[in-house]
Parts: sequence; C-alpha cells; structure tokens
Amino acid sequence: MTSPPPAPALSRHPERQRSGRADLDEVLDSALVGHLATVLDGLPLVVPLGYARDGDRLLVHGSTGAGALRAAAAGSPVAFSVAVLDGLVYADSLFSSSMNYRSAVVHGRMHVVPAADRGRALDVVTERLMPGRRAEVRGHRSKELAATVVLALPLESFVVKVRSGPPGGEQPSGVWCGVLPLGTAVGEPRSAPWVAGDVPVPRSVEEWGRLRGSAGS
Amino acid sequence: MTSPPPAPALSRHPERQRSGRADLDEVLDSALVGHLATVLDGLPLVVPLGYARDGDRLLVHGSTGAGALRAAAAGSPVAFSVAVLDGLVYADSLFSSSMNYRSAVVHGRMHVVPAADRGRALDVVTERLMPGRRAEVRGHRSKELAATVVLALPLESFVVKVRSGPPGGEQPSGVWCGVLPLGTAVGEPRSAPWVAGDVPVPRSVEEWGRLRGSAGS
Repeated sequence: MTSPPPAPALSRHPERQRSGRADLDEVLDSALVGHLATVLDGLPLVVPLGYARDGDRLLVHGSTGAGALRAAAAGSPVAFSVAVLDGLVYADSLFSSSMNYRSAVVHGRMHVVPAADRGRALDVVTERLMPGRRAEVRGHRSKELAATVVLALPLESFVVKVRSGPPGGEQPSGVWCGVLPLGTAVGEPRSAPWVAGDVPVPRSVEEWGRLRGSAGS
Repeated sequence: MTSPPPAPALSRHPERQRSGRADLDEVLDSALVGHLATVLDGLPLVVPLGYARDGDRLLVHGSTGAGALRAAAAGSPVAFSVAVLDGLVYADSLFSSSMNYRSAVVHGRMHVVPAADRGRALDVVTERLMPGRRAEVRGHRSKELAATVVLALPLESFVVKVRSGPPGGEQPSGVWCGVLPLGTAVGEPRSAPWVAGDVPVPRSVEEWGRLRGSAGS
C-alpha cells in the first residue's frame, strides 16, 4: 500500500474551507449517499453508493462484481464525494446567487475489509442507514457475506467546504434576497404487499428521522 | 476533440439499468447537484456542482480557478454522477435491504461554452435551479461573465440505474418489510437582514417546490 495521494489545494472560495476532522465527520454523518470516483485505464469512473463513517474510516459495500468498487479494491486511487444541499441563496443578481451546502471529498486508497471483520462492518453501514434495524431481523448468512465486498477508506486526506447564511453583499435594491432552506422529507412508510395488516411498523422505521438526524430542513 | 470514452458496462444489478434518453433526462431533471469526476496526473478529482440539462447537453459553471473544472475544460475525460434517493427499502434481512434511487452517470469530454453563448447558458442553469428568478433581478454584467466558465457535456454516453418498489423476495416472516419514502423538504424562506419587511417574498421563491418539481417524497 503506497501513501495516499495528497488532497488538492482549494482554489475557489477558500473562505468556505474547513480543515478539522470534526467538520469532516459532521458532513459525512449528515448524508446517506456519496459518490466514489476512481480511475481505470486513465478514465474516470464514478458510482453513487450508500456509505457509513466508522470512526476514522469510511465504509462502502457492494457486489463483488461492481466496476468502480473492483478498481478501488485493486488499489486505484479514489476520491469520495459527499454533498448536502441546505438551501438556495437568492442574491440581488444571478451572479451572486448561490447554494448553502456542506460538502466533503476524501482522497486516498481503499482496502478490502478482511472476511473476519466483514459482518461487523456491514452492521455498521446498516446501522447508519437504518438505525435499529439490525435488532429486528436475522443475522448475516455466510453465503451473503461471501457475496459482498466491504471497502474502507481512511479519513486522512480530505477537503471540507461549507457555505451557510444569507447572500453575500448588503445592497438594499428593493429586490427580495434571502435563503430558501431545503432538507430531507420523510414520507409515510409503505408496507410490502405480503406483510399482514397486523404487523406493526417497527421502531427502526417509525423513528428514522429522529434517529438518523437528517430529516427536516 | 477526440470521441468520448465509452460508458462502462453495468455489471451489478443489470435489471436496474435503463438505456433511453428519456430515462436519463428524467433523472437529470430531478436533481440540483451532481458530482463531476475527472482525472489529473492519474489521480481522481471530484467536485459537487449545481448543474442543468440544456436539451442534449449538461451545463455546469464555476470560477475560472476551480481545479476539477480546469482539468475538464482542458479536455480531461469526465464522468458526471447524479443520484436521487427516493426511499429506504426494509427487507427481512440486512443483506436484501436496499435503497430506492434514480441515478445517472454521463461519460465524455466537456467543452467550454464560447463567450457569445455564455450569458444564455448561465440563464439556463439559473432557471433550472431557481425558476423565474431571472426576470426578478438585473442581467449579467460583462465582468461577471468574464469571471465565469461554463462547460458543456454532450448527453451521448451514459448509464442510468433505477430501483423502485418494495423489497425483493416475498417471505412472510412476521417481520415488517416495506419502503420509507424520502424526498426534498422545502422550508420557510428567510429574508436577508437588509431586506425591508415590506418587500414580499417573490414568486420564484414562493413557487419553488411546484415549479422545480422535486419537493415532497
């Protein structure tokens, strides 16, 4: 394993950059899906993936046949990108209009989580996406574990960017300026067709918004 | 300009693949932010960006100094990834649990939109993100146009994936299974501090959810 490639310097809006691990963790823990970019034969590959932060590493999982995961598992350098859109920023010109967001890109090389640690790593991912669900269903079967690859990316080299607050400038021009907040809406659970009417919606579903902490705006 | 690199074959869940331009357009028109991946010195770069579809091309814009945009503008091959998370899919095992989503990755090479077309291209992007706002504010100034780069990516080589509906299988196990729908929540507009109390929230903000078509779950 060679050392991870350095994160590129941020050349645009340096005032939006954050450098702390706490900033990174806050962004990573606020989203459910990230985009894994890698390089194969000189060409970019990118795939959206569910993920979870597990302490000082980021975990993704997938089928052993997926292209970008295979390249990443083989040691290709990766960049994992997460963005949370918090609002639209209406300025008094289109040029100054913007978005409020929190974003992170983690650079490095992934490694395959060893078989002995795979079940626990999968539990971590599931527990992030569906808190409490693990306790409601059966455990992993060995053939399921065998069909899954879990990759880990150390949280060492990263760029975090945050924009928040009102539009830039302060120009009373008579035009309304401000922010339209955006967030995640959680709908009503829909039972699968074969679930009997007297089977209650479980706690992991009922409390998703509160436990996951990303509902609302 | 060389021909665009081919889109990689989809090796995982081929039943989720869609091949039509209408499928692609539906995904691209459902999101506000995509992730632009490219390659610089053999390493992956990725950056989240607001974007808009403009007929048969995808438009992004940014400062002339941004790294990934600069590499893309210089002709590096790109992959642009968009994902819309529609719900969490609770199966009777963690292994079969999934997400409902619509995703698209467009492969190719970008070109810089010529200066003469730049104002209109920026209007297209803004009109997608904030429908109606263009008519409420002043037009672009020439120094603003000069500080902005707009890149276009032809919609020729792409992969679309969609998962929808209930969990796989049909196993009445006594465990609740189903889908928790997720979508975009639109909050209450927040006026900038310098906006007088009698300036009404404009139509572009009031009707955002309806005009943009991506609110709700």
